[in-house]
Amino acid sequence: MAQLRMAMAQVNPTVGDLEGNCGIVVEYARRAAGAGAHLVVFPEMVVTGYPVEDLALRKSFVAASIEATHRLAERLADEGLGELPTVVGFLGRCEDAEPRFGQPAGAPQNALALLHQGRVKVVSAKHHLPNYGVFDEFRYFVPGRTLPVVRVHGVDAALVICEDLWQEGGPVATVRDAGAGLLVVLNGSPYEHDKDDERLDLCRRRAREAGAALAYVNTVGGQDELVFDGDSIVVDAEGEVLARGPRFEEALLVTDLELPVPSEPEPRGTAATTGIGIERTVLSEEPVPAYDPRPGEIAQPMEDLAEVYTALVTGTRDYVRKNRFGSVILGLSGGIDSALTAAIATDALGPDPVHAVLMPSRHSSEHSVADAEELVRRQRINARTVAVGPMVDAFEEAVAVDGLAAENLQARVRGQLLMTLSNQEGHLVLTTGNKSELATGYSTLYGDSAGGYAPIKDAWKTLVWELARWRNAEAARRGETPPIPENSISKPPSAELRPDQLDTDSLPDYSVLDALLDDYVGTDLGRTELIAAGHDAELVDRVIRLADRAEYKRRQYPPGPKISKRNFGRDRRLPITNRWS
Amino acid sequence: MAQLRMAMAQVNPTVGDLEGNCGIVVEYARRAAGAGAHLVVFPEMVVTGYPVEDLALRKSFVAASIEATHRLAERLADEGLGELPTVVGFLGRCEDAEPRFGQPAGAPQNALALLHQGRVKVVSAKHHLPNYGVFDEFRYFVPGRTLPVVRVHGVDAALVICEDLWQEGGPVATVRDAGAGLLVVLNGSPYEHDKDDERLDLCRRRAREAGAALAYVNTVGGQDELVFDGDSIVVDAEGEVLARGPRFEEALLVTDLELPVPSEPEPRGTAATTGIGIERTVLSEEPVPAYDPRPGEIAQPMEDLAEVYTALVTGTRDYVRKNRFGSVILGLSGGIDSALTAAIATDALGPDPVHAVLMPSRHSSEHSVADAEELVRRQRINARTVAVGPMVDAFEEAVAVDGLAAENLQARVRGQLLMTLSNQEGHLVLTTGNKSELATGYSTLYGDSAGGYAPIKDAWKTLVWELARWRNAEAARRGETPPIPENSISKPPSAELRPDQLDTDSLPDYSVLDALLDDYVGTDLGRTELIAAGHDAELVDRVIRLADRAEYKRRQYPPGPKISKRNFGRDRRLPITNRWS
Repeated sequence: MAQLRMAMAQVNPTVGDLEGNCGIVVEYARRAAGAGAHLVVFPEMVVTGYPVEDLALRKSFVAASIEATHRLAERLADEGLGELPTVVGFLGRCEDAEPRFGQPAGAPQNALALLHQGRVKVVSAKHHLPNYGVFDEFRYFVPGRTLPVVRVHGVDAALVICEDLWQEGGPVATVRDAGAGLLVVLNGSPYEHDKDDERLDLCRRRAREAGAALAYVNTVGGQDELVFDGDSIVVDAEGEVLARGPRFEEALLVTDLELPVPSEPEPRGTAATTGIGIERTVLSEEPVPAYDPRPGEIAQPMEDLAEVYTALVTGTRDYVRKNRFGSVILGLSGGIDSALTAAIATDALGPDPVHAVLMPSRHSSEHSVADAEELVRRQRINARTVAVGPMVDAFEEAVAVDGLAAENLQARVRGQLLMTLSNQEGHLVLTTGNKSELATGYSTLYGDSAGGYAPIKDAWKTLVWELARWRNAEAARRGETPPIPENSISKPPSAELRPDQLDTDSLPDYSVLDALLDDYVGTDLGRTELIAAGHDAELVDRVIRLADRAEYKRRQYPPGPKISKRNFGRDRRLPITNRWS
Repeated sequence: MAQLRMAMAQVNPTVGDLEGNCGIVVEYARRAAGAGAHLVVFPEMVVTGYPVEDLALRKSFVAASIEATHRLAERLADEGLGELPTVVGFLGRCEDAEPRFGQPAGAPQNALALLHQGRVKVVSAKHHLPNYGVFDEFRYFVPGRTLPVVRVHGVDAALVICEDLWQEGGPVATVRDAGAGLLVVLNGSPYEHDKDDERLDLCRRRAREAGAALAYVNTVGGQDELVFDGDSIVVDAEGEVLARGPRFEEALLVTDLELPVPSEPEPRGTAATTGIGIERTVLSEEPVPAYDPRPGEIAQPMEDLAEVYTALVTGTRDYVRKNRFGSVILGLSGGIDSALTAAIATDALGPDPVHAVLMPSRHSSEHSVADAEELVRRQRINARTVAVGPMVDAFEEAVAVDGLAAENLQARVRGQLLMTLSNQEGHLVLTTGNKSELATGYSTLYGDSAGGYAPIKDAWKTLVWELARWRNAEAARRGETPPIPENSISKPPSAELRPDQLDTDSLPDYSVLDALLDDYVGTDLGRTELIAAGHDAELVDRVIRLADRAEYKRRQYPPGPKISKRNFGRDRRLPITNRWS
């Protein structure tokens, strides 16, 4: 057996920011070298950020990514880090792709590179290209065909990318044939409620199948609708956890490994079981001198609601920051949705960049204003009040309007006020709708649905209440002021767009509604199955109709952090014109 | 040789309307039988409409499609049409798909069925699943594996679907081995400027390769952002055109064919060249009695601008109709964009369901109102005038606002007025922005970009002028009143959101801008290539920055008919957070 100190850099790149991302790699490589690591590994496509979507089809972008990766190798050497083998993900190109109708333009690849001594020593690409849920990789990439195995200080490490770990067969199934002692996996694996357990089980299983220790390094941070949660993992060849990274935070995870020394250098060849070519590269044969290993760090698991809440905070923080906004603005109604959104914004950015606007109308109850003011005091955010009456009146004098059109009018005056203040003062507008509203279309286009980012759009209303209660309890536990007024949590929800209006006038109780919506939207059950599952038949018909007809509104809704297995953003794509329901 | 009268039904289904679509099939099958056809062929996925997007992953929808297809076979027989072999596209299921991680849920297939004597006699699925541009089929479908060959009145017809014709290899390359005399191709091929020539060339080439006559039947009509243009084609085995359907119109294309009679019934088997299994079905061995063939109809080609304009009218008409709106509303500024949009709406729906709103502000010039009024007179549409001053004033009294925020405020008051009238009166709001605006972000979120459908969003400003001139000339040619006031075409464009504003204050001349945008957006050239192509370097930098930063606005823009190779809807998918430019 031979020792190897491996560092995994769980970092937060930004799509398109090649220079900034390479700067992150240099910084973490330096920290890894400082910690005495013999190998440092970065996430999937760290050079470009992930996912790049149609940027992959732009030849100039692919060329810039390849150029940046070569420059990065040189820069690491220039900064005295050239002896540390550094594995990064980048956007590459399949140089020998035969032209074929329908092949992604320029034959881009989701690739990895091993940088050493100022040069790119190994290049390889992802085999399995996920094209489901939030992923569209079959649209963008040409698959890889080989498994790279790199000898570092006398031990063999195989290198693969993300989906290759999830699929049966392919390069991971080739690792045992290749006789590698370590399997390194670069990931850009988005957060999904409960996915952490799935990942750990998978890492353990694949390590045992491969007969190799397994190092799983993941991205952190928000990118548009995706939130990456880190949770990098190292297991030994028996599947025992050696180290585990924190959730949602950048970290350098340093792990001391004991790995088998292959008896003699293996020739290049083709794996018997998969037919995949094994590409071997020797960086160094000499084992590292014996040293005292340190135990790996194993981050504590997060409880469920903490995990979800942190995902929302992370998504919000990074969307604001990566889009170069310095502040946010949102409407505060005194209700639970805007209260929770404000708490998330304050946790993401601190109170100073958070601007609230109270926009009471003739239908606003007294407690609404009082609850909103109480929230402002608790969270110490900026606030102003603009009564919407005069603007609503001006519209009502110009055009005859009543019923739902009059309700929408008020919501749109508020949306327009927020957009005007955004344009005038430079804040990003946060939209405060929840997933139950999005699902049923219980919102006004260009009204309460206006804005740039919607922190709770993937949270059912029942989850919104749970998160608010959890956040307040968390504050109490820490001896801080609970950020959300108790009355905002306990009062019955209302849009307050007509006298004495309650959500329950138009919708069933949220506990009933959310259970049905989750079966319909989350699990994709059909009408018959929903009724068989115990949902009321009349309600099923009504909710299916509402949900399918709200597709246009959902398309126009701002992006927000995805937390559930199925949200309304990238992974549920329905036609607008649809006469199915 | 044997005779065969084949009918191709170039029809317009609606996504999700299984009952309505099957009704269309019955109607056209009856017409085909009435015309003495021996075989009738419908487009790709005619039973469900196309594209169904994530509906394909809903098990209940797949089951409903399969059920509807079996019922359709029975109904055709019940209505006395059971002896006419009828080929339809439908959403099927791969019954023997092995479960595999990442496989589309329920293993749906883009399938075809041959209906005969009350039963589904043949089922087959598309092999090549396009996953580029507007297509996402690899996300939704499991590929087919066999080539069906059906003997009808003693001649052999091979049946394939759309992309299988475009790709080298696969089932089309198997047709010659199969010895089929006729290759039938079911299509859902969206309109794209100049694609008709490409299609004809392809049909001719494939017919010669296969040594078989080729019948290409395509969908017509609009579905969300796609417009299908028909243009169904029949060529003989030498690639000579025997018949060609009209563009953008439903039609039954009846063609008399002379086809080779295979010497003896071929066994089932595997093609030597492709390894694809050939599935043979005999419906009838007896040739049809000799009859006098009629020459096929060959539709006249359309001129370029007529084709583009008709695509916009078709998309608009079907989006309104398929989403069950009875009328449309739009703001008329007196400028060219809203004038052309009104003309398209009037051509799509007639003047009665078209409602115009003139919304002058303090910055509106006199000619603006006069030009808008002149348009209303020419097109005889409904119109009203609502001055926006009082509403703008109400906002300006509530919040301090100047500069761009004040310009956006006016645009949003107009957007809100249209939405309010839409909610109150039930009209669909038509959005009047053009592609040059979308590309550069020269529009106001929730202002002029508000609405439900945007007829000219895929037309560069220079094309907008061309289309307006073409439409007026066309009217003159027909002895009708040109619908668009000459002054709306000839005056310099202005947003009229501040005194004496002209588009050229913020943007270069459209002839310069559109050429650059088309190279950047349409051809995806990078900075260096754009400059090498002769575009001004400073302008290139400015336009790239504008174009990439406008991605968020484009995401929120309503859908509109796609007419160019690359639009901003389904086939250009960029991240919002992108620091590349």
